[in-house]
Amino acid sequence: ARPRVGYFYSGKKNADLFGDVLSRMRISDYQSVPIAVQETISVYDATVTMFMEDVGSLIVLKERYLQGVVSRKDLLKVAIGGGNIHEIPVNLAMTRLPNVVTVSSEASLYDAAVLMMRHQVDSLPVIPTKSAAGTNVEVVGRVSKTTITRAFVELGQYREV
Amino acid sequence: ARPRVGYFYSGKKNADLFGDVLSRMRISDYQSVPIAVQETISVYDATVTMFMEDVGSLIVLKERYLQGVVSRKDLLKVAIGGGNIHEIPVNLAMTRLPNVVTVSSEASLYDAAVLMMRHQVDSLPVIPTKSAAGTNVEVVGRVSKTTITRAFVELGQYREV
Repeated sequence: ARPRVGYFYSGKKNADLFGDVLSRMRISDYQSVPIAVQETISVYDATVTMFMEDVGSLIVLKERYLQGVVSRKDLLKVAIGGGNIHEIPVNLAMTRLPNVVTVSSEASLYDAAVLMMRHQVDSLPVIPTKSAAGTNVEVVGRVSKTTITRAFVELGQYREV
Repeated sequence: ARPRVGYFYSGKKNADLFGDVLSRMRISDYQSVPIAVQETISVYDATVTMFMEDVGSLIVLKERYLQGVVSRKDLLKVAIGGGNIHEIPVNLAMTRLPNVVTVSSEASLYDAAVLMMRHQVDSLPVIPTKSAAGTNVEVVGRVSKTTITRAFVELGQYREV
């Protein structure tokens, strides 16, 4: 496999090479499909969705618009809390706007990795443009530490080119 | 920040550069401290430990030796199952040997990333030598998709060297 960076380098200083290649890996080329639920469903139903879709986080919507993100960690916290997980709505467990860290599909995978490390989150909703945050936002994708790990593997396979 | 790869390249074909650099990133330079629990503790206590230590998985030991690994996903599955999480021992929730995917501290971060993608796990216990698997194994570290994401960010910062 060959990284989807689109071109080869020659004669560049190596010090620049990594940064350049990583900053040219577009999120839109690596993102996965966002798995979304409505904010009124229960913590139990959200957890079942998470298992069925085999993802580590869900986008929580009100109609079509981003309201929050809920992770395995968020659901686990509620599940061991002793409340009725069939009654508690997922919007009480989620991280909600404006605290959701999002990334633009035009950003680089490197930008996404920096955001995940800085904010200590495992995944980010991908939105059309960063400037749209604050208004009604539709989510177009999802990047996670799994996405980054896959890209890292792809970079390592570069030797096989 | 400068990647801990130890040297610079010159005159190499770029196609080899990534693979070489990634394969020289030693696990022992990036691994984090393993957080371990005894196999007899409850699912509830394991979950509390996970939150207190802020990790996504725990090493499960019998005395000093590796018995299994338990993830947020494993604990969440039990927590929504309706059983008594204060009674169910963590060793009923974990992935147990010989099904635990481990990595040697002498392997590369690239090897670890490949293993995590291939086996669809979020973290790996680091053991002294791969050949020790099958016998009584002591865990010396832990690598996760967070470790890979941190290394990816570090590679991207290479441009600042």
